[in-house]
Amino acid sequence: MSKANLFYAQSGGVTAVINASACGVIETARKHKDKIGKVYAGLNGIVGALHEELIDTNKESAKTIAALRSTPAGAFGSCRYKLKSFEENAREYERLMEVFKAHNIRYFLYNGGGDSQDTANKFAQLSIDKGYPITCVGVPKTVDNDLPITDNCPGFGSVAKYVAVSIREAGLDVASMCASSTKVFVMEVMGRHAGWIAGAAGLAAEQEGDAPHIILFPEIAFNREKFLKKVKSCVKKFGYCAVVVSEGVQNADGSFLAEAGGKDAFGHAQLGGVAPFIADMIKAELGYKYHWAVADYLQRSARHIASATDVEQAYAVGAAAVDFALAGKTAVMPAIIRGKGKKYSWRIGEAKLADVANVEKMMPRNYISRDGFHITDAAREYFAPLIQGEDYPEYKNGLPQYARLKKVLEKKKLKAWRG
Amino acid sequence: MSKANLFYAQSGGVTAVINASACGVIETARKHKDKIGKVYAGLNGIVGALHEELIDTNKESAKTIAALRSTPAGAFGSCRYKLKSFEENAREYERLMEVFKAHNIRYFLYNGGGDSQDTANKFAQLSIDKGYPITCVGVPKTVDNDLPITDNCPGFGSVAKYVAVSIREAGLDVASMCASSTKVFVMEVMGRHAGWIAGAAGLAAEQEGDAPHIILFPEIAFNREKFLKKVKSCVKKFGYCAVVVSEGVQNADGSFLAEAGGKDAFGHAQLGGVAPFIADMIKAELGYKYHWAVADYLQRSARHIASATDVEQAYAVGAAAVDFALAGKTAVMPAIIRGKGKKYSWRIGEAKLADVANVEKMMPRNYISRDGFHITDAAREYFAPLIQGEDYPEYKNGLPQYARLKKVLEKKKLKAWRG
Repeated sequence: MSKANLFYAQSGGVTAVINASACGVIETARKHKDKIGKVYAGLNGIVGALHEELIDTNKESAKTIAALRSTPAGAFGSCRYKLKSFEENAREYERLMEVFKAHNIRYFLYNGGGDSQDTANKFAQLSIDKGYPITCVGVPKTVDNDLPITDNCPGFGSVAKYVAVSIREAGLDVASMCASSTKVFVMEVMGRHAGWIAGAAGLAAEQEGDAPHIILFPEIAFNREKFLKKVKSCVKKFGYCAVVVSEGVQNADGSFLAEAGGKDAFGHAQLGGVAPFIADMIKAELGYKYHWAVADYLQRSARHIASATDVEQAYAVGAAAVDFALAGKTAVMPAIIRGKGKKYSWRIGEAKLADVANVEKMMPRNYISRDGFHITDAAREYFAPLIQGEDYPEYKNGLPQYARLKKVLEKKKLKAWRG
Repeated sequence: MSKANLFYAQSGGVTAVINASACGVIETARKHKDKIGKVYAGLNGIVGALHEELIDTNKESAKTIAALRSTPAGAFGSCRYKLKSFEENAREYERLMEVFKAHNIRYFLYNGGGDSQDTANKFAQLSIDKGYPITCVGVPKTVDNDLPITDNCPGFGSVAKYVAVSIREAGLDVASMCASSTKVFVMEVMGRHAGWIAGAAGLAAEQEGDAPHIILFPEIAFNREKFLKKVKSCVKKFGYCAVVVSEGVQNADGSFLAEAGGKDAFGHAQLGGVAPFIADMIKAELGYKYHWAVADYLQRSARHIASATDVEQAYAVGAAAVDFALAGKTAVMPAIIRGKGKKYSWRIGEAKLADVANVEKMMPRNYISRDGFHITDAAREYFAPLIQGEDYPEYKNGLPQYARLKKVLEKKKLKAWRG
């Protein structure tokens, strides 16, 4: 039998460092040419496997693969595509098995969040049942930081750094102008159900009066009256008020404050626009001049201001996933384990996908201040190490140089997939 | 007579590098202690002069002043406050004269855009008429890049770099996901009447298919049909479409596409929210899934990704303004003069405030492609040098360390100003 091949796919919303994980996977696999044949990457994630669109990463130079470490977004393409359960759509799973068999793929590394880890977990069991066992290893990734077991998720540290830097800078802007102009600034950040990203922005406030003054978390039911009172007191005390609002902030009845209406492929509501909503409310009730920003994709693709810690960890989980696979471990995921000491340290541990799948890790209540509007020292202790260090990409002509892949597809062997 | 003092004020919307100009002013003035006594900075700009709130910058350490070079926003406070004409409000001018006399101020350096240069110009003449001549020197600043004579305005290069980097990164994000998710991304940038900032974002597109695919300029009347056709063709060709839209984009009749309704102190309409407007239009007409971002203050305060060229020029105009003042030049402004050679070079020249005041420099039509949706090679040649080089601030605990001033106010000598 020829050496087994490895299939790697990126899944769900991308991050500033998911390609650093891809870099870790491919560079590590290349060190084991005795055991791993080709490393295929799914064109647009798992959808590429269904369509037998397998990018042959061996066709990319070592230099290009190295450049992935500092390239944001999903270089091979990602997708929002969740496999249904085997009972609901056995054909999809059978197709994957067929493609993997046809291309002698025995390792499946799935780089994604909770939904993807669930898929990898189910697929591992199914492949055993079907008599063609595939070693399935998850690679954690999500800006939302909501995976359990792992101390943090690669991708989060960089968005955390971006939002903290941004609100510090915009806060200084508003502070400069507030005597005669804008008094309230509202910045909307990602975070559907968990306030990790919004919370990290709180790191920017180091001294009394620093921005942000108010953080609105999805975990804390929005209280209009209390909020407006707090805004007013900040303006009175500091001359201005900088607010960070999580896109997922909710009313007491669990409805989103501002809902765009659409739903994504995973059935989640598509959010956006809570910043102008909040800003308008402040204008109407308190009369303050306002500005607002919605960072949207800018925050999760901001490789130019990535956290060095995050980049290092993203690479490490990719590398470890290959090590796990070669050790024959299946249905597992490398997890980041924080050391117990006072000084931050971390190592790679092992999590069972069954324990990771479909569990959403919320922010502990003790990370949020009693009044619900800021973070506590416990939160600072958790967040601070994750944004440590700068890892600047190379620049040419004033712009960051990001990897451009050839994306050569392997020759197809099967009939077209009709979905 | 004791040595004359200097008054420096920041005016209007702040930038990532206006404090670099302040640094240039103060460090240069400190080299001329034989001629310049104290350097006062207006607390919140010219309003600080009216209220006799004069920050004694001598009370700030050399280290703090040096740190201004890498601190965004207006460290002394800025304001949106335009002096009325002398005929309309002689009291304000007389008050300024009174404050300047009381504090032996003979030099007035005004760091702002067109409106401020107009004020400085009028004040220079008035002070001569009143028999207490003040040497008035403008220091150019505006992210809008709309001042005449100077090749570019300090502040612009950094916002240009920010928007080009941001759309490159967000473009990669959308490209990763477009096969199964978001197909259109709209990023709104500043630029009320001139499309300089939107145009600079075009630098990110270096090869066919690169983001941004479409730029909407205030200079080009919005044509809904043509725009939607272009979006559709981009999605067809590249799989996705990244749009940069200037806040000031207008309909054929001159009305803004999206108008927030409010007006600022200068009587300009307060804009915002054209990105969601455009995104909704695309969704309604073409059905594509979209995301949008509004960078707002984030773009003009983003010192973390400032252009090194911009920082250098901002410092240089501040330093030159002091040199001009000491040479007895009044009603002038240092201007950036671009060299004629193929390789970019610049030097400081001298512009008369009378020629600068209230003139808005628009983008030349030949900087915009024939179809109105992108920039030309001529534009690239102009923009490219302005975003050259990185000038990173210092970081501590993962966050940029920005100057914190003591802002010690000079003792008041006059009665309170009642406005």
